[in-house]
This record gives sequence, C-alpha cells and structure tokens, in this order.
Amino acid sequence: MRTIRPLADDRSVEIIDQTALPHVLRLLRLSSLGDAVRAIASMQVRGAPLIGVTAAYGLAMALADRADDAQLQAAVEALAATRPTAINLRWALRRMQQCLSALPPAERAPAAWREAAAIAEEDVRQCRLIGEHGLRVLRACCPATGRWRLMTHCNAGWLATVDHGTALAPIYAASAAGIDVHVWVSETRPRNQGLLTAWELGQQGISHTVVADNAAGLLLARGEVDAVIVGADRIAANGDVANKIGTYLKALAAAVAKVPFYVAAPRSTIDFACPEGAAIPLEARAGDELRLLQGSDAIGNVGWLRQLDASVAVANPAFDLTPAAFVSGLISERGCCPATRAGLLALYPEEGHG
Amino acid sequence: MRTIRPLADDRSVEIIDQTALPHVLRLLRLSSLGDAVRAIASMQVRGAPLIGVTAAYGLAMALADRADDAQLQAAVEALAATRPTAINLRWALRRMQQCLSALPPAERAPAAWREAAAIAEEDVRQCRLIGEHGLRVLRACCPATGRWRLMTHCNAGWLATVDHGTALAPIYAASAAGIDVHVWVSETRPRNQGLLTAWELGQQGISHTVVADNAAGLLLARGEVDAVIVGADRIAANGDVANKIGTYLKALAAAVAKVPFYVAAPRSTIDFACPEGAAIPLEARAGDELRLLQGSDAIGNVGWLRQLDASVAVANPAFDLTPAAFVSGLISERGCCPATRAGLLALYPEEGHG
Repeated sequence: MRTIRPLADDRSVEIIDQTALPHVLRLLRLSSLGDAVRAIASMQVRGAPLIGVTAAYGLAMALADRADDAQLQAAVEALAATRPTAINLRWALRRMQQCLSALPPAERAPAAWREAAAIAEEDVRQCRLIGEHGLRVLRACCPATGRWRLMTHCNAGWLATVDHGTALAPIYAASAAGIDVHVWVSETRPRNQGLLTAWELGQQGISHTVVADNAAGLLLARGEVDAVIVGADRIAANGDVANKIGTYLKALAAAVAKVPFYVAAPRSTIDFACPEGAAIPLEARAGDELRLLQGSDAIGNVGWLRQLDASVAVANPAFDLTPAAFVSGLISERGCCPATRAGLLALYPEEGHG
Repeated sequence: MRTIRPLADDRSVEIIDQTALPHVLRLLRLSSLGDAVRAIASMQVRGAPLIGVTAAYGLAMALADRADDAQLQAAVEALAATRPTAINLRWALRRMQQCLSALPPAERAPAAWREAAAIAEEDVRQCRLIGEHGLRVLRACCPATGRWRLMTHCNAGWLATVDHGTALAPIYAASAAGIDVHVWVSETRPRNQGLLTAWELGQQGISHTVVADNAAGLLLARGEVDAVIVGADRIAANGDVANKIGTYLKALAAAVAKVPFYVAAPRSTIDFACPEGAAIPLEARAGDELRLLQGSDAIGNVGWLRQLDASVAVANPAFDLTPAAFVSGLISERGCCPATRAGLLALYPEEGHG
C-alpha cells in the first residue's frame, strides 16, 4: 500500500486520511487544488516527504483546466502557504515550477502529472536506500546478537513518505534481515503521530511499546535504548535539524546517556540555502489540537472530547530545533554523514558550488 | 478551599475528586480505610504531600471501630502499598504509627484524628513557608521589573498539598506581591495534571499558557523562560529528585539553556535514608492511562474515548529521576539549599547524627 496513488482519470489522487488513523483506515480522493491544500493543512497527509509529493500532485490538479503562468504561480503560492517548516514542500514545488514554466501552457497538465509521479517514485527509491544505509549505521551501534532496542519520535514511517519511510526504513530493513527489533514509540502529543508509528509497526509485526513523550528521558537514562532514530522536516546546511516538537528533548537525553541519535531524511529535506537552524521557520498550529481529544468509542466510531475550555490559553509549536552538535549522523539516500556542513557537502558535492 | 477536610463526625473526610478536574469540581466523602486506599491508588487525591495527609486520615478511619496492634499494622501496610514513590506517604504513616503504638488501643482513634489533623496543619504551614523562601529565590533569578516567565511540570499546587502547594506556592506569593507572573504549564501526559495546574492558576487569575510536554525544550532554548520550578515525590540524601515523569527532560533542557531549575518540597519529601536517586522505587502505572482519553462532551459530561486498542503494548512509568547535578537548588520550609548532601544537612542538621 502507498500513501498516495494517482487515479486512472489523471485528474485525482487517492490518499489515506491520516487524521482517522489508527482508528479507521479511510481513503480519500483529492481532485482539486483546494482538496490538496486542505489535506496538507489539516494533516490528512503529513510527513515532510509526503506533503512534498502531495503538493506536486496538487499543482498538477490545479493545472487541469487552466495552465497559464498566472494559474501556475497562484497554485504554487497556495500550496506553499499550507505549512512553513518542511522544506520538501517548497523543494517539490520549485522542481515542478522549473519543469513546467519552460513548457507551453497546453503541455503543462500532462507534464505535471508525469513530474509528480516521478517525484513520488524518486521518494520511494530514496527511502529504500535510506533503509539500506540506515541498517548499516544501526548495525554499528546495536548489539551484534540479540534484540535491538530503538527509539523514535513522531511518525517517519511509510505513512510520512510514499513508501518505506525515513526513520522507520532502517527498522523495516533490519526486521526484513531477521533482526529482533523493539521500538519505543512516543505518543507525540498533541497530534499523536506516534500512534501512526505503532499502527505501522503493528501491521509489519514489529515489536513496539507506546510511551508518553515524557517517558523518553527515563528510558534513555536507564540504558533501555541502543539508538534513537528520527526523521526531519528541514535540515539546515550546518546540520541543525527541525523536526516534530519534542525531538530536541530526546536528543538531549540521548546525548547525556551517550546513546547515538540519528536523523534520516532524503535530499529533499536538506536546505542548503538555510545556513543554520535559527533561520528555519517553525510552524505554530491551532490551539484546538491541545484542547480537543480524538479517539474512538466502544463501537469504533471516531469521536472528539474537549479536554480544555476554549478560554484556556494554549501554545502549540509544532516543531523544534535540534542543534547539529546533538546529532550523531545524518542518513540520506547517499549514505550517512556527520551533521556538519562538510559532512553534507561530502555527500552532495554538487551543492558546494553555490 | 482545602483539598482535604475532616468532617464533623470525626469518622470521615471530604476530598476534591481530582480525577474529575478540570471538567467538574466534585467533592467525595471518604469514610473507611478502603475509601482512602482507593482514593490514593486511583489518584482521586494525588501530590506527594496530599497523599501523605490522606494516608494519615485513612489510618484514623481504619481505627474507628478496632484499634489493636494487628489492625494498626494491617492498615499501615494497606496504605503504604498504594503508591511506592512519594516518601511523604511512608513518612506520614511512620509518624502516625510512632504516635499511636505508644497508646492503649482505646485512645488510638481520637489520637489518630488529632495527629492526622496536625500533619495537615503542618503541611499548610510548611507550604506557606516554601512560598516565602521560593519567592526570594525567584527574585534573585527573575527580572527586577516586568514579567516573570516561569515553567512548571505536573501539578505541585494547592491541589497536591493541603493548601498553597509546593512549586506553585512561590508563584502564588509572587502574584500576591504584585509581580506580573506568567506560567508555562505542561499537559503532563498521561494523567494531564498540568490541566489541574491551569485550573488552579485560572482560579487565582494568574496568567498561564498550556503546552504539550514536547514543547518545553523549544521554549527553554528560545529564551522564553526565566526559571523552572517543580515539586518532588522523593528527594534522596544526595539531592537526586524523583518527580513526575518528564521532569528530567525539562531539567536537561534548562541546564543547556542555563535557566535555573528549582525543586520545591517540604521536609516530608526528603528521604535521608535513601542515599541516591537510583535507590528510589519508581512507580509504573496501568497502561490504560495511555490507552484511554478523558474529556468532557458538548454539555460538560465527563466521558472517555479509546485512543489505543488494548492489544497495543504500552509502558507507563509515572516518575523519573533528575540527578542532583541538574538541580539549581532545593526549596523547603527552612529555605533554599544546594542539591547536595551537605546542602540538605545544613538545612536539617538534626539529620546529620544518623
């Protein structure tokens, strides 16, 4: 199963509605720019690589009936405005725009579908390679025999990409290689993407335990974790990492416990134009994400409860920054490098000319 | 309002059912040992000082009809078995037992009520003093003019004690002194005691913002916090602190951000018999605390939703350890001391003879 799939009409895609998981596996059809914008902004699709791919398809949908420069520009702006932190979104839109603006309007719609599909296929291939490189990295820091005890945060699995995942790709690769893996899964309040990770791992039969985000420090301090591996929404040129809120706390606890802390992400997540983490815009989301609770009732209907009155002030930063100094290595489709400018340029020498 | 109040019958107490807050302010009457055991174990009363006082009253209730040595011992054991981490529970039971075992059984029940009330009054007095000492400590690290931006974790307010609170006592004292205080309040998953803190602060008109536990690192790294102040469930003789799960992560982030991190607790929380944090038993609670969500529906009825299927493995450690090295100071009813054996003995020289 893939998270996003173009339909035969060449005018729409089918996605998994991730706001309904893990309660219900619900598929949704997106067939307009508005559908794509809503799906990204409301996190029906989420995960940096997947929102890039969804934006690419959204642009293709926007050009179905009208594809002049004004329409192209307006659609790019609408999609770029959905979420600020994950650079993959902008990366995909820029790539689409470069491809399309050179073409006459009449050729843009079919070309956009082809390019979006190419971005999706490239994501699948890169995530598979991240799995292979990440498996080698984990072999070097996990026990040669016996169980590997890993920790992750949020969801950087196949649900966050088109397939395979980023942080979870090496875990799937390890499991496929016959290694006994156990994963500590943080709830990841307020949106509970950890439950998506638990659902994914459960589907693959990989042992895992869900914990409150608060528990990560104790588990690391107690020596119950061999390595932490997370995804990223944007990696600055110096190796600083923007990722789901709470990542930084895990990185600190891992550093104190001398447990390696890896970040796995494809090229599209690396922002060579961004000199350091402080320059990354960090999204603040609506307070209702903390005020309202989503779950299922006794017969499995998805429902909501209020946990805080609307009068209570809440702040809901969705991402935090992990300074490069706390990152043991960056794992991309090209391999693993130190979280430094030199490390990144060694993997991507073509970026050194800028 | 107090969290626990002996009723005129001298056989029962009235408590606030903290499992219903912040949705409903519900009072409950406890009139037997079983009631007290259930109230403590289910966290209808919670907070280290308050469970100590509740255990003292519970022991008094247990002796109402029969007060021989066997009954006394059985009741102490039943109450001590409710929760392992907060030493205040054992401290209160030991004090009650010392007072009562010297008396003939016929005199024990009324003496037990008097001693429980004395422990409660002492708690009120000590928490007020913690507020005064803590205010002095905060003055030294917060801006001389303008807003104080404080952060806390869990609930160490009046709800966690008989009145005033521990970590919140200095905040109440600051507000009473006319200082403009703002408090960052962490949800404190899985039991959401941060919502109790928000409720308390709201009742007192003190400005506050609720955030996901994951957000603490970002706020500290961004320089949005002048000081962190939390309570404790047990302080070892070397200054290590057991407190609500997630405390340690805040202490790490405060240390990296060079923000002072204070722990406020009365004498009954300090375990001079415990050499270091590693010797403190840390409670693990039922997984359903993560699997089920409590909130209120549109008309204010308190209800539950399932967020994780019973088949999903969860771990629910309720406390973690913050090494003394990350604690800027311990604030008790006697003042503030470094989080070291020498610091604690300087405040409590009578403990140095052991």
